[in-house]
Amino acid sequence: MSTQPVKYDPKNMIFRRLGSSGLRVPVFSFGGWLTVGATVKGDPVKEIMKTAFENGINMFDTAEGYAKGECEVEMGRVIKELGWRRTDLIISTKLFWGPHGSPNDIGLSRKHIIEGAKEALERLQLDYVDIIFAHRPDNTVPMEEVVRAFNYVIEKGWAFYWATSEWSAYEIEEAHHVADKLGLIAPIAEQCQHHMLHRERPEKEYAPLYKKYDLGTTVWSALASGLLTGKYNNGIPPDSRFATNKDFFKDTLDILTKDEGLKKIEKVKQLTEFAEKELGCSVTHLALAWVAKQPGTSTVILGATKPEQVIDNLKALDVIPKLTEEVLEKIEKILDNKPSPVL
Amino acid sequence: MSTQPVKYDPKNMIFRRLGSSGLRVPVFSFGGWLTVGATVKGDPVKEIMKTAFENGINMFDTAEGYAKGECEVEMGRVIKELGWRRTDLIISTKLFWGPHGSPNDIGLSRKHIIEGAKEALERLQLDYVDIIFAHRPDNTVPMEEVVRAFNYVIEKGWAFYWATSEWSAYEIEEAHHVADKLGLIAPIAEQCQHHMLHRERPEKEYAPLYKKYDLGTTVWSALASGLLTGKYNNGIPPDSRFATNKDFFKDTLDILTKDEGLKKIEKVKQLTEFAEKELGCSVTHLALAWVAKQPGTSTVILGATKPEQVIDNLKALDVIPKLTEEVLEKIEKILDNKPSPVL
Amino acid sequence: MSTQPVKYDPKNMIFRRLGSSGLRVPVFSFGGWLTVGATVKGDPVKEIMKTAFENGINMFDTAEGYAKGECEVEMGRVIKELGWRRTDLIISTKLFWGPHGSPNDIGLSRKHIIEGAKEALERLQLDYVDIIFAHRPDNTVPMEEVVRAFNYVIEKGWAFYWATSEWSAYEIEEAHHVADKLGLIAPIAEQCQHHMLHRERPEKEYAPLYKKYDLGTTVWSALASGLLTGKYNNGIPPDSRFATNKDFFKDTLDILTKDEGLKKIEKVKQLTEFAEKELGCSVTHLALAWVAKQPGTSTVILGATKPEQVIDNLKALDVIPKLTEEVLEKIEKILDNKPSPVL
Amino acid sequence: MSTQPVKYDPKNMIFRRLGSSGLRVPVFSFGGWLTVGATVKGDPVKEIMKTAFENGINMFDTAEGYAKGECEVEMGRVIKELGWRRTDLIISTKLFWGPHGSPNDIGLSRKHIIEGAKEALERLQLDYVDIIFAHRPDNTVPMEEVVRAFNYVIEKGWAFYWATSEWSAYEIEEAHHVADKLGLIAPIAEQCQHHMLHRERPEKEYAPLYKKYDLGTTVWSALASGLLTGKYNNGIPPDSRFATNKDFFKDTLDILTKDEGLKKIEKVKQLTEFAEKELGCSVTHLALAWVAKQPGTSTVILGATKPEQVIDNLKALDVIPKLTEEVLEKIEKILDNKPSPVL
Repeated sequence: MSTQPVKYDPKNMIFRRLGSSGLRVPVFSFGGWLTVGATVKGDPVKEIMKTAFENGINMFDTAEGYAKGECEVEMGRVIKELGWRRTDLIISTKLFWGPHGSPNDIGLSRKHIIEGAKEALERLQLDYVDIIFAHRPDNTVPMEEVVRAFNYVIEKGWAFYWATSEWSAYEIEEAHHVADKLGLIAPIAEQCQHHMLHRERPEKEYAPLYKKYDLGTTVWSALASGLLTGKYNNGIPPDSRFATNKDFFKDTLDILTKDEGLKKIEKVKQLTEFAEKELGCSVTHLALAWVAKQPGTSTVILGATKPEQVIDNLKALDVIPKLTEEVLEKIEKILDNKPSPVL
Repeated sequence: MSTQPVKYDPKNMIFRRLGSSGLRVPVFSFGGWLTVGATVKGDPVKEIMKTAFENGINMFDTAEGYAKGECEVEMGRVIKELGWRRTDLIISTKLFWGPHGSPNDIGLSRKHIIEGAKEALERLQLDYVDIIFAHRPDNTVPMEEVVRAFNYVIEKGWAFYWATSEWSAYEIEEAHHVADKLGLIAPIAEQCQHHMLHRERPEKEYAPLYKKYDLGTTVWSALASGLLTGKYNNGIPPDSRFATNKDFFKDTLDILTKDEGLKKIEKVKQLTEFAEKELGCSVTHLALAWVAKQPGTSTVILGATKPEQVIDNLKALDVIPKLTEEVLEKIEKILDNKPSPVL
Repeated sequence: MSTQPVKYDPKNMIFRRLGSSGLRVPVFSFGGWLTVGATVKGDPVKEIMKTAFENGINMFDTAEGYAKGECEVEMGRVIKELGWRRTDLIISTKLFWGPHGSPNDIGLSRKHIIEGAKEALERLQLDYVDIIFAHRPDNTVPMEEVVRAFNYVIEKGWAFYWATSEWSAYEIEEAHHVADKLGLIAPIAEQCQHHMLHRERPEKEYAPLYKKYDLGTTVWSALASGLLTGKYNNGIPPDSRFATNKDFFKDTLDILTKDEGLKKIEKVKQLTEFAEKELGCSVTHLALAWVAKQPGTSTVILGATKPEQVIDNLKALDVIPKLTEEVLEKIEKILDNKPSPVL
Repeated sequence: MSTQPVKYDPKNMIFRRLGSSGLRVPVFSFGGWLTVGATVKGDPVKEIMKTAFENGINMFDTAEGYAKGECEVEMGRVIKELGWRRTDLIISTKLFWGPHGSPNDIGLSRKHIIEGAKEALERLQLDYVDIIFAHRPDNTVPMEEVVRAFNYVIEKGWAFYWATSEWSAYEIEEAHHVADKLGLIAPIAEQCQHHMLHRERPEKEYAPLYKKYDLGTTVWSALASGLLTGKYNNGIPPDSRFATNKDFFKDTLDILTKDEGLKKIEKVKQLTEFAEKELGCSVTHLALAWVAKQPGTSTVILGATKPEQVIDNLKALDVIPKLTEEVLEKIEKILDNKPSPVL
């Protein structure tokens, strides 16, 4: 593998603004959650990221809490080795669960946001990230302290934007109010779970925020931890993420083997058939395209353990234009879980 | 050519405040658009800039988008080689079209303004520019993000002032409102096209801004891409800018060979005769002096491919005092295009 | 003694938020007042701090005025030698009495706050402290200057939070008002004297601040300079702090040998009996636990001249849960000094 | 002369707050106007400054415009050579007349304030000055630009405070209004001419500012360019400042040789007699003490060409307590120029 600078070539990638901001993000980005620095290390990380970049995925998402910082270390190393031009990249990381475990290495205190940001940049070997997320809300810290600390990070030049992850609409609203009162920068995006089987928060709770603040989402778990790939259609295979991370996914596993889960799998089976027969694509590509098509979505974060997975997932780009109003309505009938509108 | 520091000698140059700011700019400045780093490189750039400076032109205007950054590279090299004292110079650059072509290398996102400013300074080999322009408006970015990002650039010490280029009066007004609301620094100038045949925007649309904010303009294309030099009076010569940049000037060429263009050339012919007979100068000098005389004008940017051109253009300084009320009225009769007053 | 990094192990330590802030402080911290850099220097300092840290005390409190800066020098040296991870530590220092004695080396002028902070960090060999205290109020400096200067220190990255020490409730309120008006950061804590025999200010004067601002206290002199250890129950022993610092404690000594003092000693005797018989602990541990139990208390600062003292004092952690409502009422009867409630 | 650090020893010096600020300034300070870097250079500068410092004068005043920057160069060199502790010193400089003479090297534009401050610190070989003055008002620059630029200088850490010199009360008021509106730092002092024969501005025009903002003055020309030393009582001696700087003092000279001047000299003669007979001091010491006694005065700037002059001038410290109400009234009778009160 060469360390020559790779010329940026977005190919067929679609770019969108991240929420109301001026930042252009690819509709599919790459995230290291559960894989990079954990089950995937060294050259394989480089191969996946190189493949992603060459196919237009110039956004890489990580977190201080992924593999206790090792995800950042791996991604940073690859970025350096591949010699990418910094301006061609969008790098995001998240703060909340510091890798050291001491009392102030967690949460959103000013101490941890500032110390955490500095350590994340060191692991990434970067001067700045593009977006820094509050990985969770922290109701033990005054919102003013949180907003001020992320603004400090921005004013220091360590990040261009800050954003939230898995915050309630109420908490996002509060952050905007505090930022407005103090003349500070408000968060521009929310990294939330959103997939065909998890819709209440992104589609109903956040609905007012899309209108009021032009909030954008960077979606994680678009495939419902693999459920929407159809691979659990006939039970849990022994090499799947659920089987190999039993403790982590305990709740999900419980659900999948109970009534509620079985109903979900039934839906996935119908979607699989619909995708293949009506759209000529796999249920995976349909599920990814469907999330990408949602009004609030700025980017859908893909996970991968092999370069081929990235390339395969990107076939979803071709499915997006097929999701006409008519098609979407047919999907709603299968899903039968559309959140009631906010009155 | 010596690399000894050149002593500043403004000779007969006229200096004016740039809009309401305290910055003094020469009424004629030098710009690298279409020439420096493109058709003119190396020693000839140095000779032109040295000549300009020795004749009182201490302001040099460039942009990240001029010759894909090469204009900044050339100007930066010359400034360094000539050993000018930084305080004697006014350097302006502009951000919008980054030279790399990736999705975030264009426009006015916080990411591009900050990354663009850093890269521009690297190419210029300078710690700061005096003025940094938003080369165009970007309605895909919230005005708050734009105003904050230019203020970040100023607070970092990378520029003293920020300004706009080819923004509508509405957009300039919005920038002032946002700056006022947030307690931030507003733009001080507008780099606009202004010449005897293009008057609506600078003379009518901006009129309220001159009064309200004391807006100053840094005028480009004062000679209408050469049309006002009279060199197209008898058709388009084969070595002219229009002939050698056919694609770039296609629209203009179309116009010039149609009715509207022929009417313009007729006016230029009359101006040529008026200049020579009544004022004893060329139409070029009249055109330059006329723009310099306009109420909003802070500086008129000159282009040049040879030192002699700079010296010749500066003869316009002698024409400015000749533009009495009476003379200006006669010119209006020839032009017959005075914008109607704002009521 | 090894200089290998010491792994953080909070053992049984209790952590609390410092006032309303997101910072977690141990309920018992270590302070260098009167000891470190004065009567205790070199290896013994390292032994005390190492023992403290290994027992969960990760907060160290000093001041520029302790031993004319030598306390900071000693603590900084130890922190460096022990190779502790910075994020595991909470370091606080205080500004007011600079060690040089010149006219601007005292008080809370912008000059002294900024110069003092820089010098303190140099002595500590740190890039930043977690908390910087105004060691006393300074009514010869406008509150705006004080609040701005501490915010400057925070914005420079030299501290995460600022706080006050021995300020009146009125002064703390004024600091909040100024900070609110200017959109600046307000102080988060107050380092005050608080013990069973000194209750008016922390329990009555500050009461509205606990409600309004969630003010937290970092308590000094929880043992009343040793009085509450019971060691003066039978007079002043020749090796005690009072006997060896006669000048410093003159006022206290005067009191102790007069009626008021004798009454206090009588109370301590009763508390000693109560602690031993009812709670199975020493009066020292009762006194420490009692302060830790107070509503406003974030941390109680311990002093020590030997590692054993630190370990002994931490037995108070076991006493805290024993302080039930019933027990606290019995203690109030002995103390008979409960401040009247604020109406 | 030794380069050992000089221990700070204020002796009998009186220290006062500079206006409302927390900065303590000596009631007599040393200024380099017209002497340091001009008529006095090298070792003599060191001798004067060393003598001043050893006698409690720890404040040194200069300006970029004094001897075209050479005053700063000389003072900076001496400060470095004498190895004074920075916190023991108060250094002030002023910006307006840059030493290079180019169009933006003068006045109070953002460009000149920032470039000027950086160059002044380079000449002084210091990281910061304590106070930076706007040496004159500049009504060609918006007050917002001036206030913002001085705040930039303060936020960069290049100065602790900013102040004005020879601004009208109206201009100082405007600076306060702008600072208040934008939440920025206002000027804390005014360096004005004030002596027994020049009283209108400092005693009448500024009167409301002393009350409203607690404005402090740093007085220059307390001896009326030597007139109040009595040395012109019998005509202009050939080695005096007036005789050797005829062009500079032309206006003053004209006055002194006309009726108005002769009346002033008559007053000085009476003051000389009064000082010697009633107070047992020279008229010089009376004049210095009288200015020091004025309500707005924070410090009186002394000039000197020899160490002996400094020591002699400091005898005025002993005269200050002698200026009782009764004595001041007698002086008013001689002066007969008390400004009418502001109604």
